[in-house]
Amino acid sequence: MFAAPTMPSTTGKTSISDIHDLTDYCHATAENARKASYALATLDAAVKNRWLRESAAGLIANTSEIIAANQIDLDAAPNYGLSEAAIDRLRLDAGRIESIAAALEEIAMLPDPVGEVIEGHTRPGGLQILKRRVPLGVVFFIYESRPNVTADAAGICVKSGNAVILRGGKEAIHSSRAIVDVLAKCALECGLPENAVQLVATTDRAAVGEFLKLSKLIDVTIPRGGEGLIRRVANEATMPVIKHFDGNCHVYVDMFADIEMAVDIIENAKCQRMGVCNACESLLVHEAIAETALPKIAARLKKNQIEMRADERALPLIDGGIKAEPADWSMEYLGPTISIAVVDSLEAAAEHINRYGSKHTDAIVTNDLKAAELFTQMVDSSAVMVNASTRFNDGGVFGLGAEIGISTDKFHARGPCGLRELTTYKYIVRGDGHIRS
Amino acid sequence: MFAAPTMPSTTGKTSISDIHDLTDYCHATAENARKASYALATLDAAVKNRWLRESAAGLIANTSEIIAANQIDLDAAPNYGLSEAAIDRLRLDAGRIESIAAALEEIAMLPDPVGEVIEGHTRPGGLQILKRRVPLGVVFFIYESRPNVTADAAGICVKSGNAVILRGGKEAIHSSRAIVDVLAKCALECGLPENAVQLVATTDRAAVGEFLKLSKLIDVTIPRGGEGLIRRVANEATMPVIKHFDGNCHVYVDMFADIEMAVDIIENAKCQRMGVCNACESLLVHEAIAETALPKIAARLKKNQIEMRADERALPLIDGGIKAEPADWSMEYLGPTISIAVVDSLEAAAEHINRYGSKHTDAIVTNDLKAAELFTQMVDSSAVMVNASTRFNDGGVFGLGAEIGISTDKFHARGPCGLRELTTYKYIVRGDGHIRS
Repeated sequence: MFAAPTMPSTTGKTSISDIHDLTDYCHATAENARKASYALATLDAAVKNRWLRESAAGLIANTSEIIAANQIDLDAAPNYGLSEAAIDRLRLDAGRIESIAAALEEIAMLPDPVGEVIEGHTRPGGLQILKRRVPLGVVFFIYESRPNVTADAAGICVKSGNAVILRGGKEAIHSSRAIVDVLAKCALECGLPENAVQLVATTDRAAVGEFLKLSKLIDVTIPRGGEGLIRRVANEATMPVIKHFDGNCHVYVDMFADIEMAVDIIENAKCQRMGVCNACESLLVHEAIAETALPKIAARLKKNQIEMRADERALPLIDGGIKAEPADWSMEYLGPTISIAVVDSLEAAAEHINRYGSKHTDAIVTNDLKAAELFTQMVDSSAVMVNASTRFNDGGVFGLGAEIGISTDKFHARGPCGLRELTTYKYIVRGDGHIRS
Repeated sequence: MFAAPTMPSTTGKTSISDIHDLTDYCHATAENARKASYALATLDAAVKNRWLRESAAGLIANTSEIIAANQIDLDAAPNYGLSEAAIDRLRLDAGRIESIAAALEEIAMLPDPVGEVIEGHTRPGGLQILKRRVPLGVVFFIYESRPNVTADAAGICVKSGNAVILRGGKEAIHSSRAIVDVLAKCALECGLPENAVQLVATTDRAAVGEFLKLSKLIDVTIPRGGEGLIRRVANEATMPVIKHFDGNCHVYVDMFADIEMAVDIIENAKCQRMGVCNACESLLVHEAIAETALPKIAARLKKNQIEMRADERALPLIDGGIKAEPADWSMEYLGPTISIAVVDSLEAAAEHINRYGSKHTDAIVTNDLKAAELFTQMVDSSAVMVNASTRFNDGGVFGLGAEIGISTDKFHARGPCGLRELTTYKYIVRGDGHIRS
């Protein structure tokens, strides 16, 4: 049986060979997190902020150790078949460690969501009722191989009063452990409860399944990665999951659109950064404006080497387009491809988006007030843009300060998830011997 | 294949024999609800309120038809082995129909949560960002045999802009159908979208399983009933579930308690209504006050014929107590039994509650400010009471106006769930050709 109270995962000294029983290990880790979560819930913001700033300083002070650990991951990268781009994302240098530290400093400067009184009133008879924001409790965070996410996620979770169990990708495990070692050492020095931040000491895939069973100990699981990972986690989890599925984002060009504006917005939404979830994947154009607008839009997309997959009404208006297949309407290309359709009306555009989209981010280009109002009401997405690029759906832009993901769910949190989205509330009722009659 | 567009479940004319294929039927019902939900999301509050008031009047106007339908259920009740109490809850008369109508009138008077701007700001550069409250979409509501719940749930869901699929217990199916017939007729007259309110036309248990698969069409499932039902639904559901598990509620008598106040609060919390989830099931007493307080508390409980199951420290202080078993600490008796333990400290009380409780409602009796503050911080429950009975955890008391259940989850909604808890939000971003650089 794995000895829970002395579990050394936060100090980075547990190696995989120390783990005799995976079930016991995961249970002990989650029990430790639950215990830490109760202490974290009562912690003063000043303590959490000091930890964030000390950790930032600690990361910089330990730059050479972190780079050495990172080198082990880089050396192993070819064994995992990582692409050049993935290896580049994995690489840490002094500048990148400074950025990681700066992100923690920024989290320290954000207001503490815990303790906020959301609302309150006094009942006839004098019973005082407060609705107060409190942490969710324990967050199980699963992510892939970018080591900066390790520090980011730990910072966001602890600042919002949650204990966090970090399950990082095997490709970055040594880098992540070096980072967590610094965070854990600072945690002890700053008076954070033990095990507020734990890195899962094994990269055994079965560990994820074990944690996903522990609904009594873990309040929410947040998987960040490919659709396969998220789907697996959503299927297996016994606790709530904040899901970040694909972003099949649309731009709809209304009959009352400014065509030049539409061309600029589509170019930005599609081409400014293609591999991200808020990039545009599909273009819908009102039939009344298609003949004028589509050739101009297509010319700009062609200049950007975008492959255009068009329905039969759009195809004749596009220089260099190819015929779309039915599967195209649901595709998140994350690359230089876009699907294009002509629609009969704004209502048809909204129906198309609600049917094929992913409730992520969708935009209308129009100068008509009623069209803007109707589109924002009808489209069932986390963010609806009027005359603005889909690329603006972002925690920073929305003023959240730091985000742990973008939820494509409608339940609990929608869109960018920052500190507040990692909290819940409790009712606090104060009486003076009040009894119910 | 079941013909979706003409599905007559809202008019109450589908009989079980019409349903050729259960899977098709459930899918069509959910598709119809999804379609209705998009129309409901854009509906003016005045339309929804008119429907609520017309429905209230319609129920009263159709009193004799509803009572006739209810009689069919009452006649069949012995076949279902219903207890006398259950049959009484099932019975409708003119007075009870008036109460059901009055509840709809009350929902009409509540403010519409849809469209509320939760927050908003303008970014440097002029991008305007709003966070606006919107309906969740489609609610699948599963409940047992109280016909008043049919009208209540329909009213709350539609007022909050959601389409609802009602799955009532077989014991009340004729009563429920008669009520839904009135609501659906008024819906058509008032301009609500078709299928805003649907009653599942079959009482086949397999239908629940079919609906629980439809995560793309149903946004949330709310089961109301026994723990077995809720657990089954939570296990099978592919969409979020608002769960209402047991209420193992505690009263903790602190060392600084006013003993008379403690006696009154415990009597009220335990005895005022025993079969409800916010009744007290467990009593914890600080060791420093146990010798003085426990005999007085026990005397009052004994006067109320409450069985007292005590730990070994409490037992000698209780006249007529019996020894508690370990299982007692987790029990929701819902009857004339209470478990009693002496604890070393406030911290020990909070730990006991967090370990054995159900995160529902827990109270402290104390005159010490720090104890009150610490207890409300440490206890991880939907409502924490200071010097007040646990019985006050209630949507009406908290000012929600109407509730569809009390959530024991921490995710999305906690405690009483009213109109607002059936909503989510979307970001609406307005620009003037803004693109991201």
